[in-house]
Amino acid sequence: MQNTRNILVLHGPNLNLLGSREPQHYGADTLETINSKLIELGQQRAARVDAFQSNREYELIDRIHAARLDGTDFIIINPAAFTHTSIAIRDALAGVQIPFIEVHLSNVHARESFRHHSYFSDLAVGVICGLGAFGYECALDFALRFTPKAP
Amino acid sequence: MQNTRNILVLHGPNLNLLGSREPQHYGADTLETINSKLIELGQQRAARVDAFQSNREYELIDRIHAARLDGTDFIIINPAAFTHTSIAIRDALAGVQIPFIEVHLSNVHARESFRHHSYFSDLAVGVICGLGAFGYECALDFALRFTPKAP
Amino acid sequence: MQNTRNILVLHGPNLNLLGSREPQHYGADTLETINSKLIELGQQRAARVDAFQSNREYELIDRIHAARLDGTDFIIINPAAFTHTSIAIRDALAGVQIPFIEVHLSNVHARESFRHHSYFSDLAVGVICGLGAFGYECALDFALRFTPKAP
Amino acid sequence: MQNTRNILVLHGPNLNLLGSREPQHYGADTLETINSKLIELGQQRAARVDAFQSNREYELIDRIHAARLDGTDFIIINPAAFTHTSIAIRDALAGVQIPFIEVHLSNVHARESFRHHSYFSDLAVGVICGLGAFGYECALDFALRFTPKAP
Amino acid sequence: MQNTRNILVLHGPNLNLLGSREPQHYGADTLETINSKLIELGQQRAARVDAFQSNREYELIDRIHAARLDGTDFIIINPAAFTHTSIAIRDALAGVQIPFIEVHLSNVHARESFRHHSYFSDLAVGVICGLGAFGYECALDFALRFTPKAP
Amino acid sequence: MQNTRNILVLHGPNLNLLGSREPQHYGADTLETINSKLIELGQQRAARVDAFQSNREYELIDRIHAARLDGTDFIIINPAAFTHTSIAIRDALAGVQIPFIEVHLSNVHARESFRHHSYFSDLAVGVICGLGAFGYECALDFALRFTPKAP
Amino acid sequence: MQNTRNILVLHGPNLNLLGSREPQHYGADTLETINSKLIELGQQRAARVDAFQSNREYELIDRIHAARLDGTDFIIINPAAFTHTSIAIRDALAGVQIPFIEVHLSNVHARESFRHHSYFSDLAVGVICGLGAFGYECALDFALRFTPKAP
Amino acid sequence: MQNTRNILVLHGPNLNLLGSREPQHYGADTLETINSKLIELGQQRAARVDAFQSNREYELIDRIHAARLDGTDFIIINPAAFTHTSIAIRDALAGVQIPFIEVHLSNVHARESFRHHSYFSDLAVGVICGLGAFGYECALDFALRFTPKAP
Amino acid sequence: MQNTRNILVLHGPNLNLLGSREPQHYGADTLETINSKLIELGQQRAARVDAFQSNREYELIDRIHAARLDGTDFIIINPAAFTHTSIAIRDALAGVQIPFIEVHLSNVHARESFRHHSYFSDLAVGVICGLGAFGYECALDFALRFTPKAP
Amino acid sequence: MQNTRNILVLHGPNLNLLGSREPQHYGADTLETINSKLIELGQQRAARVDAFQSNREYELIDRIHAARLDGTDFIIINPAAFTHTSIAIRDALAGVQIPFIEVHLSNVHARESFRHHSYFSDLAVGVICGLGAFGYECALDFALRFTPKAP
Amino acid sequence: MQNTRNILVLHGPNLNLLGSREPQHYGADTLETINSKLIELGQQRAARVDAFQSNREYELIDRIHAARLDGTDFIIINPAAFTHTSIAIRDALAGVQIPFIEVHLSNVHARESFRHHSYFSDLAVGVICGLGAFGYECALDFALRFTPKAP
Amino acid sequence: MQNTRNILVLHGPNLNLLGSREPQHYGADTLETINSKLIELGQQRAARVDAFQSNREYELIDRIHAARLDGTDFIIINPAAFTHTSIAIRDALAGVQIPFIEVHLSNVHARESFRHHSYFSDLAVGVICGLGAFGYECALDFALRFTPKAP
Repeated sequence: MQNTRNILVLHGPNLNLLGSREPQHYGADTLETINSKLIELGQQRAARVDAFQSNREYELIDRIHAARLDGTDFIIINPAAFTHTSIAIRDALAGVQIPFIEVHLSNVHARESFRHHSYFSDLAVGVICGLGAFGYECALDFALRFTPKAP
Repeated sequence: MQNTRNILVLHGPNLNLLGSREPQHYGADTLETINSKLIELGQQRAARVDAFQSNREYELIDRIHAARLDGTDFIIINPAAFTHTSIAIRDALAGVQIPFIEVHLSNVHARESFRHHSYFSDLAVGVICGLGAFGYECALDFALRFTPKAP
Repeated sequence: MQNTRNILVLHGPNLNLLGSREPQHYGADTLETINSKLIELGQQRAARVDAFQSNREYELIDRIHAARLDGTDFIIINPAAFTHTSIAIRDALAGVQIPFIEVHLSNVHARESFRHHSYFSDLAVGVICGLGAFGYECALDFALRFTPKAP
Repeated sequence: MQNTRNILVLHGPNLNLLGSREPQHYGADTLETINSKLIELGQQRAARVDAFQSNREYELIDRIHAARLDGTDFIIINPAAFTHTSIAIRDALAGVQIPFIEVHLSNVHARESFRHHSYFSDLAVGVICGLGAFGYECALDFALRFTPKAP
Repeated sequence: MQNTRNILVLHGPNLNLLGSREPQHYGADTLETINSKLIELGQQRAARVDAFQSNREYELIDRIHAARLDGTDFIIINPAAFTHTSIAIRDALAGVQIPFIEVHLSNVHARESFRHHSYFSDLAVGVICGLGAFGYECALDFALRFTPKAP
Repeated sequence: MQNTRNILVLHGPNLNLLGSREPQHYGADTLETINSKLIELGQQRAARVDAFQSNREYELIDRIHAARLDGTDFIIINPAAFTHTSIAIRDALAGVQIPFIEVHLSNVHARESFRHHSYFSDLAVGVICGLGAFGYECALDFALRFTPKAP
Repeated sequence: MQNTRNILVLHGPNLNLLGSREPQHYGADTLETINSKLIELGQQRAARVDAFQSNREYELIDRIHAARLDGTDFIIINPAAFTHTSIAIRDALAGVQIPFIEVHLSNVHARESFRHHSYFSDLAVGVICGLGAFGYECALDFALRFTPKAP
Repeated sequence: MQNTRNILVLHGPNLNLLGSREPQHYGADTLETINSKLIELGQQRAARVDAFQSNREYELIDRIHAARLDGTDFIIINPAAFTHTSIAIRDALAGVQIPFIEVHLSNVHARESFRHHSYFSDLAVGVICGLGAFGYECALDFALRFTPKAP
Repeated sequence: MQNTRNILVLHGPNLNLLGSREPQHYGADTLETINSKLIELGQQRAARVDAFQSNREYELIDRIHAARLDGTDFIIINPAAFTHTSIAIRDALAGVQIPFIEVHLSNVHARESFRHHSYFSDLAVGVICGLGAFGYECALDFALRFTPKAP
Repeated sequence: MQNTRNILVLHGPNLNLLGSREPQHYGADTLETINSKLIELGQQRAARVDAFQSNREYELIDRIHAARLDGTDFIIINPAAFTHTSIAIRDALAGVQIPFIEVHLSNVHARESFRHHSYFSDLAVGVICGLGAFGYECALDFALRFTPKAP
Repeated sequence: MQNTRNILVLHGPNLNLLGSREPQHYGADTLETINSKLIELGQQRAARVDAFQSNREYELIDRIHAARLDGTDFIIINPAAFTHTSIAIRDALAGVQIPFIEVHLSNVHARESFRHHSYFSDLAVGVICGLGAFGYECALDFALRFTPKAP
Repeated sequence: MQNTRNILVLHGPNLNLLGSREPQHYGADTLETINSKLIELGQQRAARVDAFQSNREYELIDRIHAARLDGTDFIIINPAAFTHTSIAIRDALAGVQIPFIEVHLSNVHARESFRHHSYFSDLAVGVICGLGAFGYECALDFALRFTPKAP
């Protein structure tokens, strides 16, 4: 349907480890569970949610480049470790000019000082950190409520 | 009812100006509108939301101190300019040991460099910025879903 | 008269001590004397000068907020110690969008290094320091000569 | 009696919380207990001790201004969070030219790095930190033994 | 006449371009217009104003050296780009020990960060910036009102 | 007697010069006078005070090592110049795990900036500076009142 | 022919986006157009130009390693975002010891401050920035005129 | 055999170039020679040594992730250029919680200043640099002697 | 002819020494040779090239000022040592608003760290360094090909 | 025997405390045990190992000076706290020009930030940290295998 | 005579003011007196001393350039304010490759912090400061005793 | 004779190595030779020169303390490595209030950056570096010519 919103959810390196261990600490949710929840939430609101995780910087870049052509309206990205090191992904986001929200599962401000700087935040619509998987849901909700459909 | 959640929403200096001018830019929402929406959302979920704005650092401190005794379960705070200057409010929050989320209407990372440092973020559960008034709603939703009732 | 200019003069913390002691050093002028002079200079030129001193950050913020509604055309502010610490007053000035000049009685550049940074200067029309009470007079003269009446 | 020494004890923000909770950690002493002890120690030595706590920066400033006129000979101040942020209180102390000692209950050097800088220490007679409430007693003892009565 | 005040006005590099272009932006005033106005203001008050512009650091140094012998009572200097780079002119001013005010046409605090440091400000009586040509007039007024005649 | 407290007082380099010259400035007290006073205060309270001064870093280290075996309950140390340079003495104190207070005769915060950093303060129970020889007495009093006897 | 020069042109991440959009801004030239022009310029001067773009750091590393064995005489590299982050590519260039010029299409000095540092420039023969695609042509011209054929 | 230790040796980018050139400088040892030596040393002590080199950050991440499941007891890693830039590999190591030693062939402290910081050292058991290929052998020896078999 | 392009080539201090000594190192080219080459290249393309070297900051400033009136279309400047110290020349270039390229004969990034900052680069169209005299030729070629004739 | 290697092992301040307490934490090994092991390992390989510990900077300097004359071929040094403060020992090692390895028992990179800088590392052959007493053995092994006998 | 040494003495800006005022402070020596003394000392030892002062950076550069051709064997330079700002004079000295000593009349280390950095010291044979005019004599003595005659 | 000047020459750590090796590099002069020369120069001018070298910080401190009582008029000190690390020796010099010159054989400004800071220079009369042993002679000459005999 032409009015369907297309939301791309990107997960950076090491997030594939999520949930598969230390469930008492990080919860039982795997990345798959998180993605399923987001896809389902999208479906309830006539939006297509496409989720992609990679440990490869270039795959994230390529996926963002593809978003320029596939009708993606909004990107939700948790760049994980690349937050602090990848100007290349930043440049990809700047290049495709799709609005995005930066999400972090943990509160990066309470961790090592090198995690206090992000190459993404100043370009982002907004940033959510520390709310766990719920942060993605907030971002999705925001995207669906407040962002106009790309032409 | 004994199981009612009590949520305190704190707004820092100059936020009283919100919405009363330049509606084309900031939207027609006044702070009152935002607070009403949060109170209503709380009521739908059997939670009491108490909102308080002040340009006075000491009133925010005093309100936080009072929260220690009035059954407040969670604090949502937009410290505004005090984000970058008030160790006293930080110490108040640390003193009462009530979990809190830090919210900013605008994306502070896209503004002056002195707005990139917060005296609150490392103590917060999480931080949301750039999502406008919706950021408060996310924070409220998080508080009601994921935080246990204070004993 | 509808063409009367309204000038607000704000004095920050500790300036109430001015002139009441060490007259051989700071001159015999109290803050009252300074204000009277400015009011008189205003009257000579059909301008209303309103002077206000406070040791309270919030009173200065509130007074600036009020200026948005009371027809103030120009603000002359000596933020004193708040120059270096109050982003809240800066935000109030930015919020009401009234042009202002920053004045310091002493030459802040010849004092402690923490006085070399101001949270106001980059937003100000201009800055005058080191000229004593005469700095206020220059600022008033400038306001009356070069700034258009607010609509 | 004309030779009575007048000592002003100032406590900064959040110190009103002292002792009322976590007694196993901070001891059972409330701020009231501390003040009573100091007043009593003063009385034993014919000195008047006046103690004042505030979460309000301006009240501390005003109290210091008042000290210029009420015969205060010495100030003992625990600026708490204002230690690191209030140039206005610093300026007040510099303005009234009453000697003072800076006291901290905890050892600020063992805490967050932003607590390592004080806007007061270079103006103080001396600094005591980490000795708990006993630090105030040392300061009082010093004031009574070594400081001449103000004229 | 022996009581005539002698004021030296110095303009640094590139100020010779002033007013000759972009009149809609900088105003129609050339440096000549500014100087004429200052000379006239001086004449009204029995003061001799001598104005000098140079793109040559050494000419400014030499002119300052000459001021030591020609009865100059006060210097008003806009060092322009040399503000941030010329210790040699600073040393010349320190060497002749004539009081001076530093003037900038634009608000240097609102421009590139390298313009925030001045090699002159800590030696100056005061600093005026952002008031355009009026800044010179303030400085002249100050010099004539408050500075004693050199012996 | 088995319950006697053992207090070690350590004085760093150049403190042997104390009191022997410029009595009008530093007072007539030599280091010997200071030590005698502390020993006497100890005797009044059944404590053994052992004082030791050295210009030799290794002697201070060795004395601290010895304290591990000789029943020392508390150390009062004025590391003087070593405050800012000796990680070796810091490590010795950390190694023997005896609680200590750092004392400075003068207010180090009012002196050269290299005196503002201490390699001892974050390990110390507390720090006293600027109170002259009285600072040692406070520290001794604290040690005797509040520190439990080593087992 | 044995005297043919072999020039390797490397383009870093996101440069594949070049020219395919916003032609009014970046010109109609795609990366393909640029490469064709360089190859043609090479052919006119009996040089083989091999151009390679990748968003993958490792492919650029591997291509540089291959250059050590395939007779490459000179490298022209636009590391794009990797300029500021990839020590690995720097080390690859240092490892193969083939002379190279660093090229940037835009003037990196007029952009974000993190673009002002390059991990390549100190190892390069030279650096060209801000001249658009013409920068590659200059580099090629330099390589062909001034660099001796590798043995 | 169930008690066999499994040691993973990881080599970062450009280390594939090792030994194949400049033998007079780096020795005749290729990476293959180094690995063979380590495997042989392992075999002598009933340990399985698995060596892996990659110029690809993601392959190193994936290999570390795999180590979580394949019984790896200890990792010896020479991150080469990634030492200074890859938070993603750091996070992978932190995620799998396998103890590791960081090895560098050359003495990084005697090279460019950007090589003085490592994203790995604070998480490592220890660091060895400057001992050439022998550094790996030390690390292997340490792993086999002092680290308990993973459960 | 009215369509002739006018290119100004400026050489900063010490460049007059070029070529006259150490020919084995810097080549036999004197500054005169370089200039002749550029003039000849210009003539081949109907452009007038005017070259000027000075050790005097003010002569470079004055020459730039003159360019505003003499029809100069483009400036090629090697500010040499003034690159790092002359805000006055920067301001002159900004004042005349003629596009310029910054050229350095050597690779400044491979030299002392104080040569890594330029007061010119962020205003320039582009920067070329390390290509020797050929850098000027590239810049000239660029100016003639890509820059429109000034009106 | 003339071909005997002479290895000097130096231990810095506080290392004499090693092993004598908290055996559950540091192991039961005293410094004596460590030295005996190194001497024995040396004997097995016809090397003379001389171990020396001192809390005195000058004794370490003097011992290094003596090494110049006593045929020492290699030095293994754990400078302990002097790592970060003693340029004098650094200069001694530079002066005698005997190759050395720097060893630390603990991982200094995981400790206080002032331990991250060493005055020795850039002069050393290599650095080993975090491997406990085994680090000395690695260093000894390296010295015996890879370093030529001093002439 | 062919073996005559040629010594060039250069004095930077503002040194022409020397001695002509405040004789009680700087001594009665003018720059002329200092130069005469140096010339006389030279004559006693068959050396030609040529002294030159300028407030003009370019004159100092030109004089240094001339020294390359006029047989100057050694330069003694007091760059005064240019010490901290003139890379151009530094480059001139580096260009002519004549050994030089840097002299300062006052102790620059006891003055403003911006005087602690020199663009000359690392290129100089040595530096003398704080010895007044005698510093020049030391430098001259050194030049005549220890520096070989230029060929 | 009562008018004899007493000059103390102090040499810091490692200077005992001087001259005993690498004579082709440092000259054949041992420290003894240097001292003898200084003593002889003193004798020619009725001054007593006492020279003392130590690798021990405390011996230098003690020697300076002794100078307070033994009639020393002037100190010439080469603190060697202690220049950059010993606040204790600085304090000793400040304590005895004897004027001193700081001498370095080599040009410290041309060496490692940590040698660019001295704890002595701001207290010294002056500093001489890079002139080898002649630097001591200049300092001695200065002391004898320009410093008044201590009372």
